[in-house]
Amino acid sequence: MADIPAAILWQNDTLRLLDQRALPHAISYLDITGVEDAVGAIRTLAVRGAPAIGIAAAYALAVAMARERQQSGPGFLQRLDDHAATLRGARPTAVNLGWALDRMRARAAREPTVSALRQEAELIHAEDRRLCRGIGEHGRALITPGCTVLTHCNAGALAVSELGTATAPLYLRHAEGIGFRVFADETRPLLQGARLTAWELSTAGLDVTVICDNMAASFMARGEIDLVLVGTDRVTANGDVVNKIGTLNLAVLCDYFGVPFYVACPSSTFDPHTPSGAEVVIEERSPEEVLGTAAARVTARNPAFDVTPAKLVTGIITERGIARPPLAVSLRRLLGISAANQR
Amino acid sequence: MADIPAAILWQNDTLRLLDQRALPHAISYLDITGVEDAVGAIRTLAVRGAPAIGIAAAYALAVAMARERQQSGPGFLQRLDDHAATLRGARPTAVNLGWALDRMRARAAREPTVSALRQEAELIHAEDRRLCRGIGEHGRALITPGCTVLTHCNAGALAVSELGTATAPLYLRHAEGIGFRVFADETRPLLQGARLTAWELSTAGLDVTVICDNMAASFMARGEIDLVLVGTDRVTANGDVVNKIGTLNLAVLCDYFGVPFYVACPSSTFDPHTPSGAEVVIEERSPEEVLGTAAARVTARNPAFDVTPAKLVTGIITERGIARPPLAVSLRRLLGISAANQR
Repeated sequence: MADIPAAILWQNDTLRLLDQRALPHAISYLDITGVEDAVGAIRTLAVRGAPAIGIAAAYALAVAMARERQQSGPGFLQRLDDHAATLRGARPTAVNLGWALDRMRARAAREPTVSALRQEAELIHAEDRRLCRGIGEHGRALITPGCTVLTHCNAGALAVSELGTATAPLYLRHAEGIGFRVFADETRPLLQGARLTAWELSTAGLDVTVICDNMAASFMARGEIDLVLVGTDRVTANGDVVNKIGTLNLAVLCDYFGVPFYVACPSSTFDPHTPSGAEVVIEERSPEEVLGTAAARVTARNPAFDVTPAKLVTGIITERGIARPPLAVSLRRLLGISAANQR
Repeated sequence: MADIPAAILWQNDTLRLLDQRALPHAISYLDITGVEDAVGAIRTLAVRGAPAIGIAAAYALAVAMARERQQSGPGFLQRLDDHAATLRGARPTAVNLGWALDRMRARAAREPTVSALRQEAELIHAEDRRLCRGIGEHGRALITPGCTVLTHCNAGALAVSELGTATAPLYLRHAEGIGFRVFADETRPLLQGARLTAWELSTAGLDVTVICDNMAASFMARGEIDLVLVGTDRVTANGDVVNKIGTLNLAVLCDYFGVPFYVACPSSTFDPHTPSGAEVVIEERSPEEVLGTAAARVTARNPAFDVTPAKLVTGIITERGIARPPLAVSLRRLLGISAANQR
């Protein structure tokens, strides 16, 4: 979307990341000159969203390797592995981070040069744009004229590139001139919905209304929500969906009120090596993020993600089509993975 | 609870209300010298919680009538009705507000003096303390050693008097030396859970942890919540529960995850004249309360309450015992109301 500042800028071999902590009040970019900068940006959510984290990490790896003294031989790969390990630890939940780093490593093994790494990161970035468009094409028919779509967190242009994942069907439908309404969960504790999704959708001219995370049930009970559409950080082999805390909440509400619950993601978010959500480590972040206004002696819990069981998912929209239950089977078929042939 | 500042102070015929907007950072009181002060305090949630609103309105009516020139005759009752109408409009959802004002009117009809009005307000206040203790006595057995109770908003000492409603079983159990844990939903948009419940429970020495409203599903899925216990602003004839926005959300989650969902309230919160929650006007408050951090051009919705259908309620704890399904029958029986004899 032309009006929305790019989350990731790559120009003349330098990497700049939009500082999403300052949105919507300020548009400023962070210069990333090495792995430590990138880890800091990922940890503090200056850059966020599973695909964007993967792309940023890929570029950061190329940037870091350009500064290494040793530009060839086994020493090159050794340093790359060191940097990749540091980047991998920045956020445990997003599968795209590891996926992008694995891809960079494979390329370096074939072609251990900085220019190959830069090229590979650019490829990952360009592919991501295509993937988002594919998700939009497959999901657009779900956005019917006059409907109201609820989304959670930010799976938009800021989390990915250009069209976003969960927002891609919305942007394409809007471009067609179809009228519909979006409710954006504010998404506590960090308010990605109120700060980022509402901002990027309204910047692009869509009709968006912020609600508190605890209001969805009330609006569903009144018949005011027709569809829930969210992104995801990881889909496990059985179709369980790991996404921002509060997603499971919406899925249970959809089940109760008979509202379709859709998830949008590129195929790179599918993790066939993890059998189910039960095996995923859920990042628990600082209580301070929750406790802004609470009394000094009070404690808080702050899991950043939850696991929505596959049985609550109506469909997963990928660039290759929509996977429908049973997801364990349909995802593999859609993504061309046989049980015996996992990556 | 001795350590918690009283929400309502009535001394030497003057009324002071704890300004709950400033909690937990400052403990300050507002002097209420007339109906307009009281309406302002109620509308801006300086005083909040259905029973506390009723008590404050009763005292405010006595305060206002003491300032009237005409202290007897039909003019006295006429002025009282004017003031009561103003107070009644302050918040539409809480049934206790109208209930307390009706009681004051009935007393004035029998005994049209300021001292009778003061006495009646003091009676309502004293009764409220007894009712809370009764709720605590009937509900205490639900709080089993080692359990985790989730509550929403503030139905504590700050919303009522002394023990609170939903908190009364917790305070009594804690006083017995029974160990258990409380999760407090932060309760967006005004954070009554994080600011008030967490503060009053921790002040009283209970083990309390704040969570965001969107986290309950995740903790229930992990088996970390044994019981949900909330207050209510109105229970309709069929047992529907009107309470702070987000309550319906919890009730649906409890249904899905098999967690008991209890509501605590004095019998004055029961409204046998309203057939169901569908007939209750839900107050919609300013979008500004939601939009603190959002972009300028973004809008928000802000319903203050939701309706939990009776079928999702495990039990309603009153000072007369616990009403269990079918609530339409059990509430009437418990409260001694026959179908032919509504007040």
